[in-house]
Order: sequence, then C-alpha cells, then structure tokens
Amino acid sequence: MDCIYLDNNATTRSAPEVVEAMLPHLTDSYGNPSSLHAFGQSAQHAIEQAREQVANLIHALPREIVFTSGGTESDNLAILGTLAAYPTKKHIVTTPVEHSAVINTAERLEKQGYRVTYVGVDQQGRLDLGAFAAALTDDTAIASVMHANNETGVIFPIDKVAQIAAQRGVPLHVDAVQSLGKIQIDVRAMPIALMSLSAHKIHGPKGVGALFMKRGVRLRSMTIGGHQERDIRPGTENVAGIVGFGAAAELARHETPETQRTIAALRDQLESGILERFDYAHINGDKTNRLNNTTNIGFEALEAEAILIALSEAGIAASSGAACSSGSLEPSHVLKAMQINERIAHGAVRFSLSRYSTQAEVDATLNQLPALLSRLAALSTVT
Amino acid sequence: MDCIYLDNNATTRSAPEVVEAMLPHLTDSYGNPSSLHAFGQSAQHAIEQAREQVANLIHALPREIVFTSGGTESDNLAILGTLAAYPTKKHIVTTPVEHSAVINTAERLEKQGYRVTYVGVDQQGRLDLGAFAAALTDDTAIASVMHANNETGVIFPIDKVAQIAAQRGVPLHVDAVQSLGKIQIDVRAMPIALMSLSAHKIHGPKGVGALFMKRGVRLRSMTIGGHQERDIRPGTENVAGIVGFGAAAELARHETPETQRTIAALRDQLESGILERFDYAHINGDKTNRLNNTTNIGFEALEAEAILIALSEAGIAASSGAACSSGSLEPSHVLKAMQINERIAHGAVRFSLSRYSTQAEVDATLNQLPALLSRLAALSTVT
Repeated sequence: MDCIYLDNNATTRSAPEVVEAMLPHLTDSYGNPSSLHAFGQSAQHAIEQAREQVANLIHALPREIVFTSGGTESDNLAILGTLAAYPTKKHIVTTPVEHSAVINTAERLEKQGYRVTYVGVDQQGRLDLGAFAAALTDDTAIASVMHANNETGVIFPIDKVAQIAAQRGVPLHVDAVQSLGKIQIDVRAMPIALMSLSAHKIHGPKGVGALFMKRGVRLRSMTIGGHQERDIRPGTENVAGIVGFGAAAELARHETPETQRTIAALRDQLESGILERFDYAHINGDKTNRLNNTTNIGFEALEAEAILIALSEAGIAASSGAACSSGSLEPSHVLKAMQINERIAHGAVRFSLSRYSTQAEVDATLNQLPALLSRLAALSTVT
Repeated sequence: MDCIYLDNNATTRSAPEVVEAMLPHLTDSYGNPSSLHAFGQSAQHAIEQAREQVANLIHALPREIVFTSGGTESDNLAILGTLAAYPTKKHIVTTPVEHSAVINTAERLEKQGYRVTYVGVDQQGRLDLGAFAAALTDDTAIASVMHANNETGVIFPIDKVAQIAAQRGVPLHVDAVQSLGKIQIDVRAMPIALMSLSAHKIHGPKGVGALFMKRGVRLRSMTIGGHQERDIRPGTENVAGIVGFGAAAELARHETPETQRTIAALRDQLESGILERFDYAHINGDKTNRLNNTTNIGFEALEAEAILIALSEAGIAASSGAACSSGSLEPSHVLKAMQINERIAHGAVRFSLSRYSTQAEVDATLNQLPALLSRLAALSTVT
C-alpha cells in the first residue's frame, strides 16, 4: 500500500479501462478530427462516441455536450458566455459555497459593475431556497448553484432550485463537477440550462471537461478560432482526453448502487471511527444530504495544514478543502459561509473516498490517526 | 504502410518517448498538483520539469511559460488578455494570413468597436514590413503576427517585426504554433512579449499548449478560478498532457540539423516530382523562406476537396489548408490574401512532412498521384 488515497474530491485515479481507451488515440490514431481525410474522420468519430457516452450519463442529447478543458473552463464559459449573450442584464445569483471557478468569477464581475447576490446557507451548509427565490429578478442574467459541495459533500436540492429559476425565467447553471458519477443526474427531469462536468473527478483524465448546454440555450463562446464544438469551444480537440472522459462516463453509468453503498459504508466507518477516537472532532455539513464518499471533519484547536502534512508523511492523502485553494492559510470560504466556529474550521480535514478505496485503507487510517494527532496536540499545547 | 501521413501541420503522431513520459501520469501518479500532500506535490514537480523543458526550447525562463489547453487558447489569451490589461487602447495590428484563432478573434473585436489593421502580404506571402511599421500607433494595444504560416509554410522575419514593434512600444504576440520545433526560436534575441505554442504540432499530445509571457508583460486572465499557473490560467492542470509537451519539447531541442535536412530533402523530392508530372501544378508561397516540411501546391482547375478525398481513398492524408477550417468550401483566406488566382487557390493542397516521413511514402505518393489526378481531371472536364 504505497499511498492511502483519501482525496478523491481533489482528483481520482484514472480507471484502467479509461487509460486503455485513450491509448490508441495517443499513439496510432492521431488524426486531427477537423481533417477531411479518413484518418482525421476516425478521430472525429471517436469524439462523437465519447459525446454520446457523456450525454448518456446525465440523460442529455449528444449535441447538448460541449467538450472543454475542464470544470473551471466550463464554469467560466457558462457564466461569462451567458452574460455576453444577454448584455443588458446585470445581475447574477449564486451562493457563497461555490467552487472558486464560480465564486472568483462572480467577484471579478462585481468589480466590473455586475450586481451579485450570494444566497446564504445554514450551519449545516443547506441552501436557503426562500432566499434563492427572492433573489431572482428581471435583471438576473444567470443563477449559478452547485449540485454537491466539494468540501463538505452537502447536496443541494437542485431539482427545486431549477424549478424556482424556471418559474422566474432565469437560466440556471449547475456546477455538477463533484456530483457527477456519485449521484444520479437527469437533465431531462429538471429545467437546467447549463451544467459543468469534469472527467478527472470520475476516474477520467485531467484536462478535459464538458458543458451541458440545453437545446436552445443562448451562449457566446469565450474563445474564438476554428469551428470545433459547433463554434462554442474552438481549438484542436483533446481527442485522447475526450475519449477517456467518455470511457469514464460509461463506467460511471454502469456502476451499481452496490458500489455506492460500499463507498458510503467505508466513509461511515472512517467517520464514526474518528468521532469515537477524538472527542474534539466534529462533522461539518448536513449528514442527511451528502455525497456518499465525503466527510469533512473539524479537529478543534488543531491546524488542518499540520494534520495534512503529518498524514502525508504517514502515506495518507487528504485535503483541507478545495485543492485549488490549498497552499493558502485562509480558512475555507465554504466553512466560513456555514458560520462554523473558527477553532473547528481551521482544523477541518476532508476525507473523500472512491470505488477504489478499501477496508484496509480505512483501517490503516484509523490506526495511524491517534498517535499522529496526539503528537500534534502536544505540539500545539507547547506553542 | 497503413496511412501515408503528409498532414503534419494539422497534427502529428506523438513520439513514443512522449507517450512513455505521459503514461505514469495517466496511471499511478495521479495526484492533483494543488494538493499539499506528497502525492500531489510529485505531480507539481512533474509540471515544473515540463515547464523547464518547454522554456528551454525557446530559451525562455520557466516562469515565463503558462500552460494552456492549446494554441487557440494561447492566441485568445494573448490578445484578449492584453486588451483587458490596456483597456484604453482600441487598436490592433495583425495580418490577413493568421490562423483562425487570431483572425477570427480580430474580426469579433472589430464588431466590438476595436479598430484592426491587417498588414498585407505579397503574392509570395511575404509580409510588408513598411506597412507594419506604419500601422502601429499610440492607440495600438497589441500586434499579433505569426512566425510561420500553417498553410504555405512561409516564414515571417519575426526578429525584424519584433524590433519594429519594440521601437513603437507595442507589445508583440507571435503565433509560433507552426514554427516551433521546425526552426530555432530564441525569445532572448528578440523583444517578443507573448508567444503561442502547441504540443500536438511537435509530436506531443493534443489538448495542451503554452503561452510564453515575457517577464514583466501585463496580461489579464480570461478564465477565473483557482491559483494554478500563477492565476493566469486556473483549473486543474492537464498533468499528463503537460508532461507530454515537456517530453516533446526536449526531443525537439535535441533534434539534429540533419533531421531537418532530411525532411527538407523529402519535401523537395515530393514537390519537384509533382511539378515535373503536372504542368498545371504551382507552388504557393515564397520558397526561400519556408518551413522545411511544408509545400502548398495549387492544382489548377481541380478542386482541392476532390483531390483530398481521392488521396484519402488511396491512404494518403493531406490537407487543403488549415484543418480547423476544412469542411467549408470557401477558398483559403491565406491564399486569398496572397491574391493567388482562384483557379489555383481552389485546387491548393498542402503536404506537410515530419521526422517520421519516409522515402517510401514520398515515392508512393508520387506513384499514385498521376492516375488519381487524371481521373479527377477527366471528371472535371465532363461536368
């Protein structure tokens, strides 16, 4: 056991089937999909097959899927592309617990003169649906609400959010990067305009994502160039990456409920094991509506960074929240929005499992934690 | 010989060394470079090594390299990012023979109220340097001039272009996607502010590119999110792709002049062989300043699309110009800007070779062309 990897919300191991599907497109099948010749056309066919596979996972039409370089680009394209398509509207509705790709975009837009309403969450990280409904106005160009939170795993009732937005005639963008492949998504069942997806969170490769664009939705491309992805996202396609995404989507679609139950059981063992061992450990986020693979645990009066480094030295990979903002010592904006006590928020560690997580890994983590944390607690008393 | 691939300006076969370098990052070494733990940090180190490799190929500093999803994104980021950094300047200078990622961006900017000057080329595709100098004004935010043309292979004297721009205090962006790895580039020797690079044109993977940003150059990011690539290009990095780009750059850097001479000799054989066989064939573009691997041949009174399909059926991959705009029946904007006779421009086929091109491939192409073209010529007489 080289590394106990409990950081699957940051990124996942590519499934062997994914790598196998990609390899021909990294080697012999290297045509440019835009080329007229047979060699290019076979690359184009591979992309179209992947488009169908990704579409199937969320019950979309293939032509509603636009491939991008990842979740961040999809989020930006959804929001900035909608604003460019509706230049007279100057209001955006979002939440304070979104991924940095959404929240930092909203903040920049505020500086550019847009009005942004951040609909709050409660201490469990649950969205205030009444406040969401009240926030939507005739001037609202787009609402952007995530499906499941990357740090806590808390799931928003996106079907209700979609209904409220649709009633008000506001296009809804859903960042589903963390929920994809973990909970069922059916875009036919909800009036969602745009949805961001990412391959590397579902055992696909890094550097590829997609934007679901419901048929008829208006959006302005943010990059300009050739005619790839129906002019929405120009540039030579990342063929191997896209094929890998398709393969990962196909695997996720055929995953049995049993796999999710196993992941949940392991997560629950880890979580209750930690709560039993450490009376200063607290779960952050609503336990009843949460991704099966995630637990966010605040170790009161300890520093998350210190815990993570100690874990890393013991061969255990976990996270203090979004990997994208790690390296900074600021407390998580998600836990801040939930008004979690600072002494808990500063010591918050996210453990996130996957289909490749094992009983042995959970056991080893639970075995190692006590010595590791008591060492840190002793240090923190000294200083 | 499954496919005679003479379309290397569209995309190239990944070098075996590139795929080998990528594989660990598609499989076991899957950490997120933003993660604090050792597993993430080893991915970060791999990226930094690739950054050094790409920097070395153009004699840049590693920190002057920003990884992107490809040439199109780099071109867009360079131009739109500079305009955003200098919001009072409303003039752009470029040429009518740029890649669609530049020229279509310029055209959209014109619609948004920017003034664009397209500095012309002569019938050989050579840039009018006097007109370039005259075009630059105090209001010019950026000049964007390609290094080598993707359709004809014609090389612009980018050192002179850079000197003129620097004298006028205008930041110069160079699209070097087609020249990289084919001719020496030394960004220390020329006052170039920004340079677009792409991996898949130098036997690296699709879906990854870079923007060289000279130290001190101001640029506003176009996507917003995490802190990756020093906030210029957020989003989880395409680690395997970036590592592949690094490996491809390393190979290109160590390529001997002998390899380029071999490519040139094969291209010359193909070209003179075609000219000897078909008196209605004409070379498009200045033969004295041209990439070693490219020839653009106009078959007068034939249709390029018909030729390409016939070639494809014979297992030969070539192109009618930029792959990104193929599928359309419009004549190439490059040949149009060169004022090439329409009867020649419509029949223009680009053959582009690589280090993997062989004598046998050139011979086979020359052997097959006569029967193939005379069949098409007969058809075109009938209709």
